[in-house]
Amino acid sequence: MKLHLLNRYLLTTPNLIPIIKLRASLFSTYASKHEGPVSMIQGASRGIGLEFVKQLLERSSREHVVATCRNPDEAKGLTDLKNKFAERLHIQRLDLTVESTIEDSAKAIRERYDYLNLLVNASGILSIPDILQPETTLTKVERSSLLLAYDVNAVGPILVTKHMWPLLKVGGGTGTERDVAVVANISARVGSIGDNHLGGWHSYRASKTALNQLTKCVAVELARKKDPVICILLHPGTVDTDLSRPFQKNVPKDKLFTKEFSVQKLLSIIESSKRHDNGKFFAWDGQQIPW
Amino acid sequence: MKLHLLNRYLLTTPNLIPIIKLRASLFSTYASKHEGPVSMIQGASRGIGLEFVKQLLERSSREHVVATCRNPDEAKGLTDLKNKFAERLHIQRLDLTVESTIEDSAKAIRERYDYLNLLVNASGILSIPDILQPETTLTKVERSSLLLAYDVNAVGPILVTKHMWPLLKVGGGTGTERDVAVVANISARVGSIGDNHLGGWHSYRASKTALNQLTKCVAVELARKKDPVICILLHPGTVDTDLSRPFQKNVPKDKLFTKEFSVQKLLSIIESSKRHDNGKFFAWDGQQIPW
Repeated sequence: MKLHLLNRYLLTTPNLIPIIKLRASLFSTYASKHEGPVSMIQGASRGIGLEFVKQLLERSSREHVVATCRNPDEAKGLTDLKNKFAERLHIQRLDLTVESTIEDSAKAIRERYDYLNLLVNASGILSIPDILQPETTLTKVERSSLLLAYDVNAVGPILVTKHMWPLLKVGGGTGTERDVAVVANISARVGSIGDNHLGGWHSYRASKTALNQLTKCVAVELARKKDPVICILLHPGTVDTDLSRPFQKNVPKDKLFTKEFSVQKLLSIIESSKRHDNGKFFAWDGQQIPW
Repeated sequence: MKLHLLNRYLLTTPNLIPIIKLRASLFSTYASKHEGPVSMIQGASRGIGLEFVKQLLERSSREHVVATCRNPDEAKGLTDLKNKFAERLHIQRLDLTVESTIEDSAKAIRERYDYLNLLVNASGILSIPDILQPETTLTKVERSSLLLAYDVNAVGPILVTKHMWPLLKVGGGTGTERDVAVVANISARVGSIGDNHLGGWHSYRASKTALNQLTKCVAVELARKKDPVICILLHPGTVDTDLSRPFQKNVPKDKLFTKEFSVQKLLSIIESSKRHDNGKFFAWDGQQIPW
């Protein structure tokens, strides 16, 4: 019986969860496709996503990373990392708005690794010249902008979570220092309703707020099913990336983080997260953000 | 100078807001197109929306109501009210997903009344046979359902608010017992992230959460501009309507409200609301709901 089939059998059989945790030790004689931590970074071509890939690959030679993006051919940062880390980096095409590409990615990961220990949904859009501009007033709010931001920032990450869920269940925390697999959805403080004192940025804000709610829905279900998976929301701070560049004018220098600093902080939150963190919304410094 | 042109001049001229408030007394000799409270109920063909129209028309012979829906020809409840209340009810076709119909509605209201004192966004979708079903698990979440619920429950009401804003600014509380015009967006407790202990209903929940955030954005802007308009969010309770009917099985009898009761409660919240209620989220009993 192949290990991944055995895993699936165990997961569909009640009351055997403690046995699954023994997987690594009990069944280590079975030929696994892979051992060691496997992370998927969705939205990895640049910015925070690319930095996650880099830091994960650099921190240990056991780490394997699946990096997804819309156009791998144009993702120079990923190609550079591929040249350096070879087999430990797997680049996969994934377009958030085309569900079949998400399914294809899940299939590719199953064939290559059979499991995941971490999924970071790092993609996000705030502005696209001539298409999407953060709104400064209600009169500038457009249906097309609202729907586009929702599609990419809220719908996409949840569909990815849906299709990676079986792989995360198999992976749990095995091979990592955690008890659980983690889904980390990159949200933003401006998605907090309670913290919204400035208004504006309607499309972006609402999409991140919805992502928070959708993540909470997933967290509730994961907890109820006692899956070895948790879901958290992360605010990276204002990070010096292409996304924030047009809006950095009023950001004090000490509040504009490098992506190296922000991702270091976020990875430390991810690695130290426990079951009781499931469904919570953390800033880069570990502080919880109100809904 | 026609009164509505004068109003627009005053509203585009800084520091004249106190003067606007004197409109009714100072300029009462000008021929206004209309006097007395004018409310718009968006999503008025049935359920809570239709009940709002009915109660508003019944409570005083001064009340005028603009009732909008997608298919006026099929809105039997509205036709019945039209037969009874004649000129005091104006039925207008409005499809939330077609912005030009929202603009047309604003134009029709401007020509007929020149202002609004109340806008209730009452439309909402939860389930449509073979198209949209409240999700019981992440595995059933579909992109099309997420986008459809968002479009109708979050995007639509905000676009309506955008186009009615100038009419609400002119109307303010004039002719009512309020100081301000009110935008009341019908949300739902399941849109609260803090209160989400059950999970599920991903599409509906996320759309209402996003509506809460979008309404908060509008409220912040209204306050900053010192407009005589506020925006509130209302949870009607579980009301015995077509929307909730497929999901009433587990609702205790005393928690399933008639639409008469719920709308009575919501109207009393609306009529007693003040500037400091701007941006708040109230349940039918006046209790605030966490985000």
